[in-house]
Order: sequence, then C-alpha cells, then structure tokens
Amino acid sequence: MKPVEVIAFDADDTLWVNEPIFIKTREKLEALIANYVEPKSLEEKLYQTEIKNLRLFGYGIKGFVLSMIESVIELSSGRITGAEIQKTIDLGKEMLEHPVDVLSGVEEALEDLRDDFKLMIITKGDLFDQESKIARSGLADYFDLVEIVSEKDESTYSNVLKRNNIPIENFLMVGNSPKSDILPICNLGGRAIHIPFHTTWAHEMISHHQQNGISYEELSDVSLVPDFIRRMNERIS
Amino acid sequence: MKPVEVIAFDADDTLWVNEPIFIKTREKLEALIANYVEPKSLEEKLYQTEIKNLRLFGYGIKGFVLSMIESVIELSSGRITGAEIQKTIDLGKEMLEHPVDVLSGVEEALEDLRDDFKLMIITKGDLFDQESKIARSGLADYFDLVEIVSEKDESTYSNVLKRNNIPIENFLMVGNSPKSDILPICNLGGRAIHIPFHTTWAHEMISHHQQNGISYEELSDVSLVPDFIRRMNERIS
Repeated sequence: MKPVEVIAFDADDTLWVNEPIFIKTREKLEALIANYVEPKSLEEKLYQTEIKNLRLFGYGIKGFVLSMIESVIELSSGRITGAEIQKTIDLGKEMLEHPVDVLSGVEEALEDLRDDFKLMIITKGDLFDQESKIARSGLADYFDLVEIVSEKDESTYSNVLKRNNIPIENFLMVGNSPKSDILPICNLGGRAIHIPFHTTWAHEMISHHQQNGISYEELSDVSLVPDFIRRMNERIS
Repeated sequence: MKPVEVIAFDADDTLWVNEPIFIKTREKLEALIANYVEPKSLEEKLYQTEIKNLRLFGYGIKGFVLSMIESVIELSSGRITGAEIQKTIDLGKEMLEHPVDVLSGVEEALEDLRDDFKLMIITKGDLFDQESKIARSGLADYFDLVEIVSEKDESTYSNVLKRNNIPIENFLMVGNSPKSDILPICNLGGRAIHIPFHTTWAHEMISHHQQNGISYEELSDVSLVPDFIRRMNERIS
C-alpha cells in the first residue's frame, strides 16, 4: 500500500443532510392525500414507483417529484385535483431550495486535511441540483475536484480515477453508503472509510470490517478522519 | 494561432435531433388540453413557466415535464384530471425513450476526424439523460472525452478546458447554438464552427462571420467540417 494522497468524499448524508429532507417531504405528501387514502400506503407505493422509474429518471429531486405525482394519482384513483398536484410540485421546489445543512465536524475536518491532501467530491445525482448544493454549502473551496456522476459503481469510479490521473493506490473514499461509497472502491483495490449517517453511539468509535475479501474502516464521526488517515500513512512510510 | 488538436462537438441538434422532439411533445399536450383552453395558448404559458423554473430545474426533460404539468394546471384553472396529468408524464417518458436520431453526415465526419484529432462532446442538460443518449447514439466510441455541464458559458468552458489540460489555442468547438457553442468560445480566444440546425440551403455553404470583435465560421453541413479544419491547420503550419 502507498500513502493516501487523494481523499474523496461522498456528499449527500456525508457532507450534508439529505435523506431526512426526502422523508420529511414524503410525510407532507401523506398529509396532503389523507382525504383519499390511508396516508401510510404512500411509502410503499412511492418506493415502487421510484424503482420502476429509476431506469428513465435516474437519481435526483426532479425524478422524485414526478414519482410522487404518479403515486398520488394512482393512490387517489385519479381523484387528486390540479391544485393538489401543484402543491406536490411545490414540495419538490422546497426541496430544491432547502438550505444545505453541513454536518457537524465536516468543515473542521476539511480545513485540517486541505493542506496535506488533494480533496475531491464524488457525488451521485442530478447535475444541476448537486452543483447548486455544493455552491450553497460554502464548502466548494476546500475541494480540488468535483465529480458528479449518474451511478456509483466500479466502472464509474474507475473512469473518474483514470480521467483525473489518480492511482487507486493513493486514493481513499469517505462516505455513508457501503453499497455506493465503500464496496466499489474496495473491489477496485482502494481504501475506504465508512461513516454511517446519524450515528447514535455514545463514544467515538473506530472499527475494522473484514468479510468476503473486502476490508474497510468504519468511523463514528467525520472528525476522526484526519488523524486516522495520517496514522494510516505513518504506518506505511 | 496554433493548429487545431482538439475538436469538441455540442450534442443536441448538432450530433442528433433534439428540439423537434420538444416541439412535437408540446403539440401532443396541446391536443390533450383542447377541452379546457385554446391549444395555442400553451406555447406562451409553457415558455414563461420554463423560464420561471430554470433557476430551480436547470435544463432537461424532467424539468420540462414539471413545467408542462404546471402549465396545464394553470391553463385549465385546476380542472385538469389526474389521468390527464399522468398522460403528460407519459409524454415525458416517451421523450426520454425517444430513439436517438443521429444527424446525416455526423458519423462519417467523426470517422474521418478520429485518427487526426482528439474528439470531445460538450453538452448541456440532464446528466442521466445525456449519458443515456450518448450511449444509445452509438457514437460514444468516437469520443475521447465527454463533458456534461449544467450551463454553457465562458466560465464553464474555461473550467472544462483547464481540467482536461487543453490549451484554448488548440481547441475548436462545433455546434448549432451561437449563444451556447460559439460566442463563449470566441470570447475565450478560441475557434468555433457554427452549423445551424436544419439548414435549408440548396448548396453547401461556408461563410465567415465577423462582428463586434468576434469572428467564427458558419458551415451548412457537418460533412464540410473535416476538410475545413484540415485546411485551417495547413494555412497555419
């Protein structure tokens, strides 16, 4: 193993809050359709609709809004009104304008790392929306490279590293999603740190995961990342 | 001036048909709302709605569909039915699945250029949709680099060139939009070829435009591009 030189961060739910905004929006929509249908039936219908539309819409808020509209039309057997559909779109617009809540400890960690490492964002989703969030987060200046991709799989990561001339041996990825941020990097032979979103541990925690030939680190908090990587590099040199 | 080494093509309405799909969809929507309102009122309302939403939605089909829905709700004073809104979304899905019609002469021109130049796509719009169109066009293998951007202005082009280490002196952009493809490049000191979409000239045409300190070439057809650029390079060397 070579020293880590490039650290890439996932964005949604790693640098800032994301998933809770989707959940809150779904709850508002449940209230909106309460006249037509048992509100709790929305969650399952919306999930099915999103999965069905993923192939055409990809990830992001605009596709989510279209899936919300389809779900409420179907659940209400078409009785939903034009005004209620407009309110559904307005919920989507609120999401797009939602303040970007940077997670606690993120800015300090980036400040700590910026002089010694090349820092990247690799995030999945809607190009326009992600660019807007990066700009509004106030974090843009910490990053040397920003890559917004439509899917986070081995082939995408491999292309991103290649086109930026980053050897996988010098690369480390930090993110909240094992499936999107950790496993593809490990499969490519790189290193990754998993920081679960909304951890509830009372104490700072560092654990090493190893199974099925995949090994990665799990830290309870982003504030632990700078020291952890520096010690990792010291052990190598 | 130095020889052209990198040629970037715009995609929508330069490599393949795009705008007519939007117009055809709008016409289908006009038929759908004919019960509520003078169909011709849609064009103006939809345009206004798109402009109003551009700041939040950016460019692309999903934002266009949301603007179509808002427009028909407003034009019908909310009387539009759930089933009709679903049909509006289905029109959007048809757009997303529409076959990619590569424009005549494009593939031959790329085949001619590929060995002597580095070829790029620089296209604006929805990341997921543009990637899907590039894949479905069958043209992906001709291009060394693909850049999908949310806006085509001087600052974006400047970043794209910088991050790919392309000197503007060796760069030439080909596209159908003076505003997006030609003027920003000329303002950065680069060269550009304007190929108007759906030209109706009886004869092949090459013309040189020069005004307000901006100069660029206009060719009537993409098939003229390879020879034109080679002669440009010969004059320089």
